[in-house]
Amino acid sequence: MRTAFYISDGTAITSEVFGHALLSLFPAEFEHVTIPFIETVAQAQQMKIVINDRYAATGQRPLVFQTFVDEALREVIHSSDGVCYDFLDTLVPSVQKELGIDPVPKTHRTHSMHEKTYDYRIDAVNYALANDDGSNMKDFDKADLILVGVSRSGKTPTSLYLALQYGIKAANYPFVDEDMDRLTLPDVLKRNKNKLFGLTISADRLSDIRQQRRPNSRYASLAQCRLELNEVEQLYRREQIPFLNSSQLSIEEMAAKILAITGLKRHRH
Amino acid sequence: MRTAFYISDGTAITSEVFGHALLSLFPAEFEHVTIPFIETVAQAQQMKIVINDRYAATGQRPLVFQTFVDEALREVIHSSDGVCYDFLDTLVPSVQKELGIDPVPKTHRTHSMHEKTYDYRIDAVNYALANDDGSNMKDFDKADLILVGVSRSGKTPTSLYLALQYGIKAANYPFVDEDMDRLTLPDVLKRNKNKLFGLTISADRLSDIRQQRRPNSRYASLAQCRLELNEVEQLYRREQIPFLNSSQLSIEEMAAKILAITGLKRHRH
Repeated sequence: MRTAFYISDGTAITSEVFGHALLSLFPAEFEHVTIPFIETVAQAQQMKIVINDRYAATGQRPLVFQTFVDEALREVIHSSDGVCYDFLDTLVPSVQKELGIDPVPKTHRTHSMHEKTYDYRIDAVNYALANDDGSNMKDFDKADLILVGVSRSGKTPTSLYLALQYGIKAANYPFVDEDMDRLTLPDVLKRNKNKLFGLTISADRLSDIRQQRRPNSRYASLAQCRLELNEVEQLYRREQIPFLNSSQLSIEEMAAKILAITGLKRHRH
Repeated sequence: MRTAFYISDGTAITSEVFGHALLSLFPAEFEHVTIPFIETVAQAQQMKIVINDRYAATGQRPLVFQTFVDEALREVIHSSDGVCYDFLDTLVPSVQKELGIDPVPKTHRTHSMHEKTYDYRIDAVNYALANDDGSNMKDFDKADLILVGVSRSGKTPTSLYLALQYGIKAANYPFVDEDMDRLTLPDVLKRNKNKLFGLTISADRLSDIRQQRRPNSRYASLAQCRLELNEVEQLYRREQIPFLNSSQLSIEEMAAKILAITGLKRHRH
């Protein structure tokens, strides 16, 4: 199996996203190896040995996805037996020409705590945790967004992702069985109606997820799931709350769609 | 100010990471606009109008970072007034030649729930939430990793990030004031000692963070922070628990370093 190395002088998150996007187009399996924080020439030379050893052992040149800013480090890796891909190196000249300004190489540009918006993201994570699952509604007035939906429809992971990635303060509120007879919005939600976003999910998938949590319970039964989903979807329509079905969407896709639909201001780009 | 558009037929996360890495090298401010889920030619034509309008309004050609897989969509955007960057288009031929296989274009390749490891990530998020802050230790034996440290040293955000991004089941356990007299590892931690990873932080920064939570408390005082940090760092050394100082590290950097140091198996690459 061909090896793909993701390396960088920082977290190597950019190299990973870059390499995965490329390799995902090819119908082949790869062995993925990430080596972050290669910050000195000595470390780069060590990395070169790892790449060369892998070539010697497998007879296939490893693919190396890298995003070094430091020329000296990049050159060491380029002199290895790997096939090196580096979109910075490839595209910087064109951006430079278009902008008419020179690049100022500096490490840890991205994914560091020195990003201007880092503190927003940490505050938002703490907010999401403190305002999860309706346990505490006193700070709902401070939310950027309030996700609503039945239990296990994806509210908590989505709110954490919005916080961690985008610094959005997302509270969440569950509609529970006891509410189902006459489903209405509690006052704190009515007051913040412009912040509400509904989640729904297919009854089959919801029932599967709940089965894992409480096997053979009424809570997990298909009938109960159908009833609850029917009630909340009626509520969303009645109250004109925008909503999404999470059945076929990843957390990343949910978050991207919620941002696109609501036009919420992100604290990180 | 020059506008940077990040567009894609999916979440546009890849376009964003790609574009930010490039633009972060240039000492300039940009207006960042992300438009995800451009999935039809009609939507691409709409996007082209947005790009052209921005050029007409500002006199500067917008930079457009895109990762379309569909040739027809890409062509519509390429015919706009934007300066288009597309590392897939640029680098696919080279990967194709090296691998000796043809690409199989397909949308939603990345960041979708159809990634093989998606369920691991959701399970890990639920695990991290259920095993946060020492409130519940009965499932610590199932952890991949147990983060330990004083209150507000960064355990919770780091464990959530490890779960969301990498599918790692990270529990966390706080050492509290009452433990400080004779700091020892509880049995459940002793039994799982090979999973422990310690966090520490500078006393100044810890005091700042705690001040925001409980202003002018003993808990937030510099003396108390120093005492607790001194005790836990001694414990880490005595028990040979690997540890990191989070003062100057982002969550992403912490997570990348923890993975590199422990060699933990990630469930997503």
